[in-house]
Amino acid sequence: MSEEISMRPIGWVESCFGEKFGTPRQSGIVPEARGRVVFSDEVPSGASRGLEEFSHIWIVFLFDQVKEEEVRWFVRPPRLGGNQKKGVLATRSPFRPNRIGLSLVALESVSEGALEVSGLDLVEGTPVLDIKPYLPYAESLREADGGFAREAPEPLKVEFCDGAKVGLSDETLALITRVLAIDPRPAFHNDEERIYGCQLAGVNVKWQVKGGRVLVLSQESLSSSQNIV
Amino acid sequence: MSEEISMRPIGWVESCFGEKFGTPRQSGIVPEARGRVVFSDEVPSGASRGLEEFSHIWIVFLFDQVKEEEVRWFVRPPRLGGNQKKGVLATRSPFRPNRIGLSLVALESVSEGALEVSGLDLVEGTPVLDIKPYLPYAESLREADGGFAREAPEPLKVEFCDGAKVGLSDETLALITRVLAIDPRPAFHNDEERIYGCQLAGVNVKWQVKGGRVLVLSQESLSSSQNIV
Repeated sequence: MSEEISMRPIGWVESCFGEKFGTPRQSGIVPEARGRVVFSDEVPSGASRGLEEFSHIWIVFLFDQVKEEEVRWFVRPPRLGGNQKKGVLATRSPFRPNRIGLSLVALESVSEGALEVSGLDLVEGTPVLDIKPYLPYAESLREADGGFAREAPEPLKVEFCDGAKVGLSDETLALITRVLAIDPRPAFHNDEERIYGCQLAGVNVKWQVKGGRVLVLSQESLSSSQNIV
Repeated sequence: MSEEISMRPIGWVESCFGEKFGTPRQSGIVPEARGRVVFSDEVPSGASRGLEEFSHIWIVFLFDQVKEEEVRWFVRPPRLGGNQKKGVLATRSPFRPNRIGLSLVALESVSEGALEVSGLDLVEGTPVLDIKPYLPYAESLREADGGFAREAPEPLKVEFCDGAKVGLSDETLALITRVLAIDPRPAFHNDEERIYGCQLAGVNVKWQVKGGRVLVLSQESLSSSQNIV
């Protein structure tokens, strides 16, 4: 009965999220988060023909930054403050059997061998197992009960220190603001002095969370390796 | 880059659909379609603890009745009448790379080692790769554009010949009616004399489609092997 199933990526994600920390925990809540699905050479040209008619798509992906043997059958969801245990199948935790993830993203455009998307919650290099069109008639269930995850997380207020915005485009500023507002810190962290850092759209961002608001301390472009604070 | 990924089912589906033919092409459109996800022995008790708070769940499954080597990169979706070619990634066809399917079903109850569900579109014995809670705040997108699959298929009228309802429970009658109304025939079939048969909830049903309406000719319980027409 327990036969092995073999799969291969059909493509990979190029993302504004350079590392796991800082990557949103759900798709769609950071509309500014852009990226691409780039298909492997094995996918023939035209395999996504017709997809351009749809506004949203499912990315079925592999949580490849979790090791296969790292299944945690019981997890503490961040949105419950990290102090309540749930079965992994009742959560969207990456530490799950078979490590399959589902992301629902807006489809911006379809080009030869790639899809441009937004509302992404996937880290650079994520292996893609499948792409499917989103079917609102079957998959938009307004009346559904989202249990302990009924609403999107309440955003924090985000402020920038003097000079911490210098050199940022409006787009990158909007991305940083929205990503930090949903508080990427682990649920059990509550040290107001601790400085966090993550990479967003090629920028190294440093921030603290004080009195329930985010304070961006500095940012530095990774490509130029030049501190612009 | 193209590394192999190995997966194993975490459980299997028990379904009112005994065979592929007659099984709905999408989840949720036949609310009377009931079944169970039965977990394998490797899934510890409590792995779905917390899931009972959610009204709907994703079943991530394997289209195991399609052979691995049977990928069809270009398909003719039934809802386009079977005469337009689309890339497989723009469709929900089972003949897809990695053969992963997504079903969104109502969660009726959670018991030790099993989940009772309705709105099922999976055939008996389907291997289950993952179970996830449905998150309406992130996954119910009313404004999404469903492209060439904007609306649920228009149901046909279903009528029963004299005696063809005899011995059927109200539940089974409702199931048969709803399943045949969405017309399981292949898109290119248009022979009004042809008699179709499929197994639904342990009943062998025979029908024709004439003048755009379904005529149920007979039904026979599989368990008793007794023709009750």
